[in-house]
Amino acid sequence: MTVDINEIPNVRRFENFSKDEMQGLAMEMTHAVYPHDEIYGKYCTLEQFVDCPPEDVHRYLSDPYNLAEWTYSMRNFGEMDETGLVMSYDRIGGKTKIYTRTKVNSGAMTVDYHCAWDQPDHMWMIYLMRVIDAQVVFNKPGSVVLWTNCKHPFYESNPFPKAAPADRKVWVGDMWPFFYAGHEVEMQNLKAILEYRHKNGLTICPDHTAEAA
Amino acid sequence: MTVDINEIPNVRRFENFSKDEMQGLAMEMTHAVYPHDEIYGKYCTLEQFVDCPPEDVHRYLSDPYNLAEWTYSMRNFGEMDETGLVMSYDRIGGKTKIYTRTKVNSGAMTVDYHCAWDQPDHMWMIYLMRVIDAQVVFNKPGSVVLWTNCKHPFYESNPFPKAAPADRKVWVGDMWPFFYAGHEVEMQNLKAILEYRHKNGLTICPDHTAEAA
Repeated sequence: MTVDINEIPNVRRFENFSKDEMQGLAMEMTHAVYPHDEIYGKYCTLEQFVDCPPEDVHRYLSDPYNLAEWTYSMRNFGEMDETGLVMSYDRIGGKTKIYTRTKVNSGAMTVDYHCAWDQPDHMWMIYLMRVIDAQVVFNKPGSVVLWTNCKHPFYESNPFPKAAPADRKVWVGDMWPFFYAGHEVEMQNLKAILEYRHKNGLTICPDHTAEAA
Repeated sequence: MTVDINEIPNVRRFENFSKDEMQGLAMEMTHAVYPHDEIYGKYCTLEQFVDCPPEDVHRYLSDPYNLAEWTYSMRNFGEMDETGLVMSYDRIGGKTKIYTRTKVNSGAMTVDYHCAWDQPDHMWMIYLMRVIDAQVVFNKPGSVVLWTNCKHPFYESNPFPKAAPADRKVWVGDMWPFFYAGHEVEMQNLKAILEYRHKNGLTICPDHTAEAA
């Protein structure tokens, strides 16, 4: 009943694959350069150091209304319904509505934005974020922000075309090849805003209750 | 007191940076190829689909004794102390002791291995892992495993040389340029083992209580 794991295809362990073999393979797999598609084809991950305490960064990310600050184009957020759903506009798509539901875990300091253009019934644009204490991983104060998107099949083709504004020519998935660039701009926004506030002793998280939607 | 965030240097938003400017910058930032150091210099992230339910993958990763299966060279795990610390040997470093403390969050499905070669007093080799439900991000059953390491300054230079075995020539940080390759081999091990067991209806998580340490 118990299988010898060294016999499973593609398993390489000290016992069935020598240190010399491992070194050879590692050198073969390590390149001077990597094609865009190999790095950003199926997943798009960014990592960034932010000179601001991890609890503050996590609290800031946990509030979806702050997306109106650090994203390039999510604006005009409405009220949140009882399921945590909030509608806003993605100005990169003209009058495109974007729906967001935010799932937060304070213990692991994760923040996931479950989003979709045009309709809220199937949320498939998933922004996976996590805040790490830089003291632990870099031996210095501050945070590391990890951010991953996975290329859901709907990026290839809009399954809800009737929900789109009639005159819209662009589909969010057309921009997948530029997700690294676009998200890096937004990560730099996040870093700049939080570092500015932290450095100057300003309030990190704006009070959105005072604003009109 | 409130600063206009559009005035903070490096902040690029719809309001202060036009869609044309954004498109130009995104094209400038997007390349055919990226140098190794730009992608794997400071962080080393891997993402992998595993055809095995996320709860199983998370439970498997949560048990550090399973590192003896899917890692290339962590073996001969001892007993866990009351703080969750467990010692094993990293056979890639000859007689090198490696210490591991595992921090698990089942809600966010994170598993972090806080490790160190030679000594357990400062754990600085941090393996950050997270399991994602592939149904949500890829519209199909299974898991996505995210795995990030950050280049802690101790990788550059061993701060505890006296704790090393006398005859050891290698330092774990010398291998940092090959972390992508080495971790990819181990990720493939993880994938192969879990997919084999899941496909064949075998127990995913071995019962380590029956084994001698």
